[in-house]
Amino acid sequence: MAQPQRRQFDPTAHGLDPDFRGLNLRGGGVDSLSEQPEVPPVTPAPHIGIGMDSCITPLRHGGLSLVQTTDFFYPLVDDPYMMGKIACANVISDLYALGVADCDNMLMLLAIAQKLTDKERDVIVPLMIRGFRDLAEEAGTSVNGGQTVKNPWMTIGGVATTVCQSNEFIMPDNAVVGDVLIVTKPLGTQLAVNAYQWMDQPDRWNRIKLVVSEDDVRKAYQRAMFSMARLNRVAASLMHKYEAHGATDVTGFGILGHANNLASIQKEEVAFVIHNLPIIAKMAAVSKACGSMFGLLQGRSAETSGGLLIALPQEQAAAFCKDIEKQEGYQAWIIGIVEKGNRTARIIDKPRVIEVPAKEEGELW
Amino acid sequence: MAQPQRRQFDPTAHGLDPDFRGLNLRGGGVDSLSEQPEVPPVTPAPHIGIGMDSCITPLRHGGLSLVQTTDFFYPLVDDPYMMGKIACANVISDLYALGVADCDNMLMLLAIAQKLTDKERDVIVPLMIRGFRDLAEEAGTSVNGGQTVKNPWMTIGGVATTVCQSNEFIMPDNAVVGDVLIVTKPLGTQLAVNAYQWMDQPDRWNRIKLVVSEDDVRKAYQRAMFSMARLNRVAASLMHKYEAHGATDVTGFGILGHANNLASIQKEEVAFVIHNLPIIAKMAAVSKACGSMFGLLQGRSAETSGGLLIALPQEQAAAFCKDIEKQEGYQAWIIGIVEKGNRTARIIDKPRVIEVPAKEEGELW
Repeated sequence: MAQPQRRQFDPTAHGLDPDFRGLNLRGGGVDSLSEQPEVPPVTPAPHIGIGMDSCITPLRHGGLSLVQTTDFFYPLVDDPYMMGKIACANVISDLYALGVADCDNMLMLLAIAQKLTDKERDVIVPLMIRGFRDLAEEAGTSVNGGQTVKNPWMTIGGVATTVCQSNEFIMPDNAVVGDVLIVTKPLGTQLAVNAYQWMDQPDRWNRIKLVVSEDDVRKAYQRAMFSMARLNRVAASLMHKYEAHGATDVTGFGILGHANNLASIQKEEVAFVIHNLPIIAKMAAVSKACGSMFGLLQGRSAETSGGLLIALPQEQAAAFCKDIEKQEGYQAWIIGIVEKGNRTARIIDKPRVIEVPAKEEGELW
Repeated sequence: MAQPQRRQFDPTAHGLDPDFRGLNLRGGGVDSLSEQPEVPPVTPAPHIGIGMDSCITPLRHGGLSLVQTTDFFYPLVDDPYMMGKIACANVISDLYALGVADCDNMLMLLAIAQKLTDKERDVIVPLMIRGFRDLAEEAGTSVNGGQTVKNPWMTIGGVATTVCQSNEFIMPDNAVVGDVLIVTKPLGTQLAVNAYQWMDQPDRWNRIKLVVSEDDVRKAYQRAMFSMARLNRVAASLMHKYEAHGATDVTGFGILGHANNLASIQKEEVAFVIHNLPIIAKMAAVSKACGSMFGLLQGRSAETSGGLLIALPQEQAAAFCKDIEKQEGYQAWIIGIVEKGNRTARIIDKPRVIEVPAKEEGELW
């Protein structure tokens, strides 16, 4: 499938000032290269259960369970419509990580930045809501209910809920020695967003311009944006078909952080070892040029609305990857193996970096 | 039942600065007497259905429906533990307004004010969470899941979800001519909170000190705090017993605003006419002393975690009020009637103000 294209968000086409940038609505922006990337400053939520982002509550009714998740975010891309889609994809992704492919309802949680002018608000907010709703529809669900408030910072998020039989979800704690690890989206989303912002900031751009062109960065940003707005729904349903032993989605803690979380809750004494890192093209080089601050190659770089990291039987892995590529036109990658161990995860010393896409536009990526 | 007492929150007992006040965490505070009271700046959320705060989604499973609501708030009282309780009571209240007495799960949404010192955060946040959890437990449910972020403003809120048969909820649109209107908590909560803050602000205090003493204000604040932290659960279950024709909870739009919302969705051509206003003692006088800015006697003053406003058959009304008083020790009041009309609500010209409590401490109120 060719790289999807979306024209850059044009504020003037909506009657806004040409300098208006959705990204500037983010309250917790990065003010110096020495800071962390724009991971929303999240601390662990109160959880019961086994460390999943979703909660599973047994119901009074005939073996049914309530599966719910909530999440919210600061603006990550300039295009408000795409931001709505990304928020929706990210919220619902926690259900998909449990193999739950059908969401029964979504709520939308919206905080509108006080500093928006009336005009800006009237343009931006409906676009964000439409993006959120459109992706919910794509996911076969709808948005019924929510809350909107004013706030110094702009945030968008929601709640995804499903009621299902216990055979509709896959508990994430059944990995066994010999399983392999698959990831369904490339890494480097937040780095791509940062690099895109740096094109306007000479002191930062100077640090990376030797390893990347403006065209590279624009492409990486577009790839990141579409990747973040893509649902993990097909992956969720394929988890059943290929007998997955557990999964998580890859978000704020980076691939290694989430691999560690997933490893830590396993019933068996296993360890996850990651050999390969599929990364949005050129972002590995950008990360290196920035020193170790992002930690992309160390698996620490935050992702937004990343792919699923799935443990599944080795003999099913190739078929899983082939099937998802056939259905969606996007690659998935076998990135590691499950060994005997003490419920931790690690990346080998010199992981193989897979540039995504491997070739130029028009190719699969 | 005697007025419950809770010692004023003492910051120094927790190792905090004696000047620390939970109320100051509110970002959207009132900066001048001419402004509106501290209603959280809420705009209507995206709703489908009939204008309820909860959404009802039919499920794939045997006639079951998913009933959900979400809400969040800025700090309203100095005591973080009570603030947690109030937030929980307010979130879940939208389920109770549908006669749903059992909540299956809650999520907690917490935004932690950036300006808190580490010490303040370590004291305040666990107290808020404990208050929220304790009240969820009192409601027979529990908090599984949620999200915590940093934000310029402190907010606490959540999601309440239940899965139930259609006979477990009462659609709010069945009021008929001849019904009466009941409200289950006194009005004036936010005015009581404001008056309490004004004791520290001479220019504001001077405007009301002729009609109210400091002792009156402290009592009103305590009453408001406990009223806001009280669940509407008993009222919800009594809605079934006494065949209620519909209800709403009374929050940010004031009693008249919510009465109007409820009237507007009725199937029959009815109008709601309010004759009586039960108000926390002295707050009617305070409202008058402030001119019309609060509009308490006009039904416009925002409430937080207010009571249920219920339409039910006239012949059931006295028994409903007697039953709730017997079970909880708190009064409910018949405040109006349902007439033929054009689906609006109004307050009569000179409504009767019921001071709550009618007598001094130790009496029912």
